[in-house]
Amino acid sequence: MPAPATEAPSISLPSLSFGLIGLGKMGANMVRRLARQDIRAAVFDQDAAVTSALSMEVNALACTSLADMVSQLATPRVLWMMLPSGEVTESTLAQLQALASPGDTLVDGANSNYKDSVRRAAQAQELGFHYMDAGVSGGIHGLANGYCLMVGGSPAALQAVQPYLEILAPAADTGWLHAGPAGAGHFTKMIHNGIEYGMMAALAEGLSLLKAKKDFDIDLADVTELWRHGSVVRSWLLDLTAQTLQADQSLEHIKAHVPDSGEGRWTANESIELGVPTPVMTMALMSRFASQGADDYASKLLSKMRQGFGGHAVGTT
Amino acid sequence: MPAPATEAPSISLPSLSFGLIGLGKMGANMVRRLARQDIRAAVFDQDAAVTSALSMEVNALACTSLADMVSQLATPRVLWMMLPSGEVTESTLAQLQALASPGDTLVDGANSNYKDSVRRAAQAQELGFHYMDAGVSGGIHGLANGYCLMVGGSPAALQAVQPYLEILAPAADTGWLHAGPAGAGHFTKMIHNGIEYGMMAALAEGLSLLKAKKDFDIDLADVTELWRHGSVVRSWLLDLTAQTLQADQSLEHIKAHVPDSGEGRWTANESIELGVPTPVMTMALMSRFASQGADDYASKLLSKMRQGFGGHAVGTT
Repeated sequence: MPAPATEAPSISLPSLSFGLIGLGKMGANMVRRLARQDIRAAVFDQDAAVTSALSMEVNALACTSLADMVSQLATPRVLWMMLPSGEVTESTLAQLQALASPGDTLVDGANSNYKDSVRRAAQAQELGFHYMDAGVSGGIHGLANGYCLMVGGSPAALQAVQPYLEILAPAADTGWLHAGPAGAGHFTKMIHNGIEYGMMAALAEGLSLLKAKKDFDIDLADVTELWRHGSVVRSWLLDLTAQTLQADQSLEHIKAHVPDSGEGRWTANESIELGVPTPVMTMALMSRFASQGADDYASKLLSKMRQGFGGHAVGTT
Repeated sequence: MPAPATEAPSISLPSLSFGLIGLGKMGANMVRRLARQDIRAAVFDQDAAVTSALSMEVNALACTSLADMVSQLATPRVLWMMLPSGEVTESTLAQLQALASPGDTLVDGANSNYKDSVRRAAQAQELGFHYMDAGVSGGIHGLANGYCLMVGGSPAALQAVQPYLEILAPAADTGWLHAGPAGAGHFTKMIHNGIEYGMMAALAEGLSLLKAKKDFDIDLADVTELWRHGSVVRSWLLDLTAQTLQADQSLEHIKAHVPDSGEGRWTANESIELGVPTPVMTMALMSRFASQGADDYASKLLSKMRQGFGGHAVGTT
């Protein structure tokens, strides 16, 4: 439910100091949520049409470049990136460090690897900036419900960003957490996503078994709707799953291919580095790899092995 | 929040027809929940003191035996067992079949294996009874929130039991489901519990990683409380986990041993019978086995193998 264009901020703040860079699904909705509380943001997306459309919708300040954004904002600035993690975030951060002023706060809201965040925070602080790594959960539903924000950084960085966290979260005092020093925000978000992988897989596997049990012909939409009320597995993921199955439980036109976006891999890596077993979360990741076809070669080889010792038939394409 | 003793039913129903057998945590609370809606149950537990205490608390009819219960209830009766699955349920059912009248409905509310339920339903129906298998979720919180009920059986069995389902569930039209024919209720409950194993393991593993990350010293009570608001992993299991960690996050006096109660094993068996992979749910079960020490022999053997090929030291007790 994006704020309608007519719901412009009732107060035009005299000094703009908040900039949001990257107006994808998450970034744009964060700007909308801030606008609902009369926080006018400067916005920039590499796609000028996106920047323009959003700025008109919520009376944000459209910027034509990072330099334009920095020049138009009052100091001390909060410059919040909502970009894909990795190269794009890295290079944008470098540009911001060249443009912004000491005392400004740079926020990375991507799903960045926490080790990158530790390194970037140290670098930014050497240059006189405050730095915050912010893990943001809530997906496309964050606009309505508020986001769940896990942030890491110095007390000074927190002080600069807290007013925005209080608006982006479901309530001023719930839904955001200063988890610890630089990196702690993205570390916490990484673990959150690893848990998400496991919970999703448990639900998907169980429902897949129910579907396969032809004797009972159980209606998956009814069951998931049922479980939402009073059961031990009730959860937001179940709520979404019930909606999906209500609309279509055959899933016949859905490709049986699950991407993974990095966080699951990092969680598995962390398990290995710390020597702490996470078989369920890691198996959920491995199942995604399998869905991507990454075990096809192993399956071919197994089929050939069975032929080798037992003469069993081998299918060919 | 058990109903206080003073909150006796305002109406003494003229004819008692509902009996509940087995007054453990679940059974007793179900009687209490029915009493709140003025349903007076006949109750029986093998421990006469338990029967007596509950009957006084909620003005239930205390029975001294199954025969006593059957003789005091008006036909057609609904006789609901909340007993441990297996032998106790099997033998109690046999006794009820010898005592009750054709047209009575026998309900098994235990976590019985659905194959037993299919067999028992066929047998009961041959004897002229209606039979219902009822999976009941909600644990000790069901009294306040209502139970999530997954039931299987004939339309006649459903018709007899539905008035009670509507009261035991969170609301008359939500929280109970006639999943299908006999066995479908316990099958659905089995899958529910398999999913529960996986979701619990995902949360526990992730939080265990957070705990192990000494660099950040992240407060697990804060994080779990945070995730309850707006995050993708918000769930009732997370709510309970946050409560636990709020009270004590060291867990230093808790034994690192997780029992398993059958449903997880049956779900894994079903996966094998149907040939549908459930690696996450099954791994959660295997992790419980490991916590029970069932992989100690394998660990000893691995240690000896390492010694064998590499001369590595082997610890002894």
